[in-house]
Amino acid sequence: MREGGNVDDAARLLISCDDRTGIVAAVTGFLTARGANIITLDQYSTDPTGGRFFMRVSFVGGGDPAELEAVFASSVGERFEMWWRLRRAGEVQRVALMVSREDHCLFDLLWRWRRGELPMDVACVVSNHDVFRADVEAFGLPFHVIPVEKGKKPEAEAALVDLIGGRVDLVVLARYMQILSGDLIDKLAVPIINIHHSFLPAFAGAQPYQRARERGVKLIGATAHYVTEVLDDGPIIEQDVLRVDHRSTADELQRVGRDVERVALARAVRAHLHDHVLVDGTRTIVFPG
Amino acid sequence: MREGGNVDDAARLLISCDDRTGIVAAVTGFLTARGANIITLDQYSTDPTGGRFFMRVSFVGGGDPAELEAVFASSVGERFEMWWRLRRAGEVQRVALMVSREDHCLFDLLWRWRRGELPMDVACVVSNHDVFRADVEAFGLPFHVIPVEKGKKPEAEAALVDLIGGRVDLVVLARYMQILSGDLIDKLAVPIINIHHSFLPAFAGAQPYQRARERGVKLIGATAHYVTEVLDDGPIIEQDVLRVDHRSTADELQRVGRDVERVALARAVRAHLHDHVLVDGTRTIVFPG
Amino acid sequence: MREGGNVDDAARLLISCDDRTGIVAAVTGFLTARGANIITLDQYSTDPTGGRFFMRVSFVGGGDPAELEAVFASSVGERFEMWWRLRRAGEVQRVALMVSREDHCLFDLLWRWRRGELPMDVACVVSNHDVFRADVEAFGLPFHVIPVEKGKKPEAEAALVDLIGGRVDLVVLARYMQILSGDLIDKLAVPIINIHHSFLPAFAGAQPYQRARERGVKLIGATAHYVTEVLDDGPIIEQDVLRVDHRSTADELQRVGRDVERVALARAVRAHLHDHVLVDGTRTIVFPG
Amino acid sequence: MREGGNVDDAARLLISCDDRTGIVAAVTGFLTARGANIITLDQYSTDPTGGRFFMRVSFVGGGDPAELEAVFASSVGERFEMWWRLRRAGEVQRVALMVSREDHCLFDLLWRWRRGELPMDVACVVSNHDVFRADVEAFGLPFHVIPVEKGKKPEAEAALVDLIGGRVDLVVLARYMQILSGDLIDKLAVPIINIHHSFLPAFAGAQPYQRARERGVKLIGATAHYVTEVLDDGPIIEQDVLRVDHRSTADELQRVGRDVERVALARAVRAHLHDHVLVDGTRTIVFPG
Repeated sequence: MREGGNVDDAARLLISCDDRTGIVAAVTGFLTARGANIITLDQYSTDPTGGRFFMRVSFVGGGDPAELEAVFASSVGERFEMWWRLRRAGEVQRVALMVSREDHCLFDLLWRWRRGELPMDVACVVSNHDVFRADVEAFGLPFHVIPVEKGKKPEAEAALVDLIGGRVDLVVLARYMQILSGDLIDKLAVPIINIHHSFLPAFAGAQPYQRARERGVKLIGATAHYVTEVLDDGPIIEQDVLRVDHRSTADELQRVGRDVERVALARAVRAHLHDHVLVDGTRTIVFPG
Repeated sequence: MREGGNVDDAARLLISCDDRTGIVAAVTGFLTARGANIITLDQYSTDPTGGRFFMRVSFVGGGDPAELEAVFASSVGERFEMWWRLRRAGEVQRVALMVSREDHCLFDLLWRWRRGELPMDVACVVSNHDVFRADVEAFGLPFHVIPVEKGKKPEAEAALVDLIGGRVDLVVLARYMQILSGDLIDKLAVPIINIHHSFLPAFAGAQPYQRARERGVKLIGATAHYVTEVLDDGPIIEQDVLRVDHRSTADELQRVGRDVERVALARAVRAHLHDHVLVDGTRTIVFPG
Repeated sequence: MREGGNVDDAARLLISCDDRTGIVAAVTGFLTARGANIITLDQYSTDPTGGRFFMRVSFVGGGDPAELEAVFASSVGERFEMWWRLRRAGEVQRVALMVSREDHCLFDLLWRWRRGELPMDVACVVSNHDVFRADVEAFGLPFHVIPVEKGKKPEAEAALVDLIGGRVDLVVLARYMQILSGDLIDKLAVPIINIHHSFLPAFAGAQPYQRARERGVKLIGATAHYVTEVLDDGPIIEQDVLRVDHRSTADELQRVGRDVERVALARAVRAHLHDHVLVDGTRTIVFPG
Repeated sequence: MREGGNVDDAARLLISCDDRTGIVAAVTGFLTARGANIITLDQYSTDPTGGRFFMRVSFVGGGDPAELEAVFASSVGERFEMWWRLRRAGEVQRVALMVSREDHCLFDLLWRWRRGELPMDVACVVSNHDVFRADVEAFGLPFHVIPVEKGKKPEAEAALVDLIGGRVDLVVLARYMQILSGDLIDKLAVPIINIHHSFLPAFAGAQPYQRARERGVKLIGATAHYVTEVLDDGPIIEQDVLRVDHRSTADELQRVGRDVERVALARAVRAHLHDHVLVDGTRTIVFPG
C-alpha cells in the first residue's frame, strides 16, 4: 500500500538530527518492537560524516499514539537529539487559504480538495478583497475579508492572527499579493506556502511578464516555496515551467503563468500535506510520492 | 553523500522478499551491529499485507565483504526467505554494447562513459554490421562483428555466447535490430536492456514513423526495458517523449525519435548500473537517484 | 497584435485546396486589394507537388463581410476549388459541453471560460447523470440531463439532437462516457472534441489504469481528438504526458490522468476556438499560437 | 514537403521591415510572377499598427538567383524599406565551433552534423586548450589552438580574426569559456551563438551549481542565445530545463546541466542554420519547424 488520495490511515514519523551510525536501525527497531508495521521509509543524509539526517517513516499499528510518542521521545529521540514529529493516523491538517484578486490557484486547490485529492480541512478562505465570496461559500466554506488599507497593515495582520492564529496547521498563499511581515510569520507559527512566477533569467521588480516578453524568454515558470521574511526567497518546494514563444503577448504569458502556478502550488501543498517535505536551512528535502 | 558519477565507494545490498513485519529493522539492525554506516535506504512494498517487499541499502564499512555476505545469508536472508545481492564497494559492472546501423545510442553511451557519467567497464561493442569499427576503436574498445545471415541465426547467437557469455554483467542493445531468441536470453543469463520507439497510440508493425505521421501524433516517445522473450514487452525501466507537429516529415520524426531514444536509454542504463532497478514480475521498481 | 485571450477583433479565413502555384499570392493579393490588413498568416502544404494546401489568414478591415465573402468565393475560391470559411470579427462560437460523472475537465473549461481564456458562448451543459447541476448553474448556465437508459440510446440521442442540433458550433465531450453513434455525429454536423487517456504502449479495453500499473509505465498521457465513428480514433488535436513511478496506485495514476486530461482538452478546445485547427483526413494541421 | 535534415533544396527569403498593409501580397505576388512556387511562409508582426514585420518564405524556382535578388531589391525591397536576405538553394553555411575544456556540446554538434542533422560545413574547431585534437581530427576536421594568456587577450582575439574572419557565416561557442570583447564581435561580423546554464532563480557569479544546490532548486536549465557585448544577455534563441531533486550533488547538477545544455544548443544551431531565427532588438523571432 502506498499513501495517497484522501484515505491515509498510516501514522507518519518525521525526523531530523545530526547524522551518525545507527539511526535507521534504532528507529525501525523501536517501531518493530512496538508491533508497528513499516509501510514506507525514506531517508536522506546531507553527508554521513558530519551532515544532517532526515527521515520519514509511515507505519500502521504500534499501540496507543500518546504512549508511543512518550516512549519514542525518551528512548530514541533524546539519544540522537532529534527534532521529530508524529502525525497520527487519520489526523488531518487544518488549512487557511489566502487570496487577493486572482482565482486560478484558489479554485484549483478547492476543486482538488472537493475531489478528495488534498487531505486537509479547509478552515476558511481569507482575502484582502471581497471578490470571491459567492464562489467560496458555494463550497460550504467561510470567507473572510480583511482589507489591508494603506498605512494600516499592522492592524490587518493583527486581525488575521485573531482569526486564524492557533487554529490552523498550514497557511497557503494562493496568489495573496500582500507581503507578510516577519512579525506575522512569527505569530502564525505554522508553515506558510507561497507561489510566484519564475523566469530564466529572473526579472525582479514590476511588470515581470512584460519584461519577460521584451527579453523573448522561451519558458515561463513558477516556484512554490515556504515563506520567510525575505520576499520570494524561502526554501523551494516545487518548480515547473511551460513553453512559450515570440507570438505570446504579455497577457498570454500571464495566462500560461497561471497554468504553471496552479500546478506547482497544488503539488507543493499536496507534498506538504502528506508530510513529504522537510526543511534543511535554505532548502527542502522533498521525499518522493 | 549520495552515490553518483563514476566514484561510488559504497557497497549496495539489494533485497526482495514477501512483505512482513520487521524486515527493515532486521536488515538495518544487522548492518549497524556489524559497524556499517547506512548511506542511503530505499524500500517499497507492493502491499504490506501479502505483498512483495523491495529494498536497496548502500553503506560503508561492515568489515570483510565475504564474511558479511555469509553472515547476512544465514542470519537475515534465510529468515525472511530473501532474494538478495551484495555489490561490493568499487565493484564495477562489465557491459557489452550491441548495435546495428544506427549510431545515436551507442555513441551517446560511449561519450557518457568516457566522461565518467556511467560507472561501467565496456567489455566490447558487438555489431551485426562492420560500420562503426573505426569510431569504436578510437575509444580504445574492441569491436566485434557477428553477422546474422539469413537462416543462420542460431550460429550467430552461438558465436555471441562464445564471445561474451559469462564475461559480462549486462548487455545493452543500443539499436541492435535483431530479435534475441529465448534460448540466447537464457544462455547469456544477465540483464539485457533494449530501447525502442513508443507512441500514443502504439503502432505495431512496419514503418512506425510513417504511420505516426499519417495519424498526426503530437508526441514521439521511447521506452527502455529489460528484454524478455516477448518482443518489446519486458519490464519498462524508463520512458520519455518529445513534442512534434504536423510539419514533421517521417524523417524528422525519426530524428526526434533518436533524441528521445538516446536519453531514455542512457537514463535506464545509468539507473541499472547504480543498482536502482529491481524487477517485480512484469514491471520494475526504480528507486530514485 | 496577435489574437488571443477573449478579445479577438480580427476576421479569420480558413482555406484548404489542392496545392499549386500562386495560392498565397492570390489570397493575399485579394485581401490587400480590398483594403484588408493581414495580421497573421499560416500555411502548410503536405507536398507542393500534388499535395494538399492549408492556410489561415487573420486580418482587419476589408469592408462588408458578406460582400467580401461573395467576391472571394467567385474570384479566388472557385478558381482554386477551395474549401474555405470566413469567421467574422467578433463572431463567437456557441459550444455545448457534455459530461458524465467526472468533473475535472468540465470545471477546468468553465473556469477558463469565466476567466476569459476561452472565447466561446457556452450554450449549455448536458449530462447523462444529474450530478453537477448546482455547480453548473452557479456559473449561470443551463444544465440538462438526458439519461441514456439501457436499450434506449436512440431515444437519448434524438433528445440530444432536439436540444442542441443546429444551435451550437462545437460539442466538447468533457469526460462524457457514452459512445456517440455515427448517426448522431452526422445529425449534429459540427465538430466534436473528445478527451481520453493514452499510454505508451496503449491499453485497449477495461481498467486501463490498473493495467498500466501492472505494466509499470512511467508516463501517463492524454489525447484530445475530433470524434469520428471509430472510437478514440479521430484526428488528434493535442497530446500530453505526466511522469509517474512504481509507487503510484491505480487511483493515483487516475489522479495524474485527470491532470493531464484537463490540460490537453483545454489546449485543444482553445486551438479549435481560435480556428487554429484544420483537418487533413486522419490527422490535423494545428497552426501555432 | 517541409525543409529539414541536410537536404534542403529550397531558397529562403528572410525579411524584416516596418509593418504596413500589403507586404505579404507584394512579396508573394513578386515570387509567383517570377514563377517561384512557395513551399513555406511564416510571418509575424509585433504590432500591425506601427510595429515591426518579420517574414520567412521558402520557395523553389524563380529563375536565376542573382537576377531574382536584383529585381526583388529594386521592386519590393526598396518600396518597403526592407532588410532582407536570400539564401539560395543548396547554399550551406560555414561554421566555426569553439570550445574550452568541456566536450558535451561540441561532440553532440559534431555527431549530429555527421549524421546529417545539421546542414552546415564545419570550417574548423578552435579552442584555447589542446585537449580535443585527436577526437576532432577523427571527424576529419581541422583543430586550431589559440591560447588566451593572461593579459594577452587582444593578441588571441586578433589571431582568431586572422583564422576565421570573413571565412565563416556563424560561430558557435560550444562551452567556450572566454568572454568575447565587443571589438571581436564587431570584427567577426557574423552571428555568434552561445550556451549557458540557467536557473530559476538565476545565480550570477561563481559556482552556480553549488549555489543552486544550496538553494534547493528543482529545475536545471540552459539558455542558447546570440552573443552581444553584455555577457549572457543577448537575444534568447532556445531554453530548456530538466528536473533534479535534493539528492543531487553539485557534480550531478552539472551532469544534468550538460544534458540540457547540449540539447538547447543543438536546437538553437539547427534553427539558425535553417534560417528560422530573426532578431528583433533584444529578442528573437523563432519560426517553428
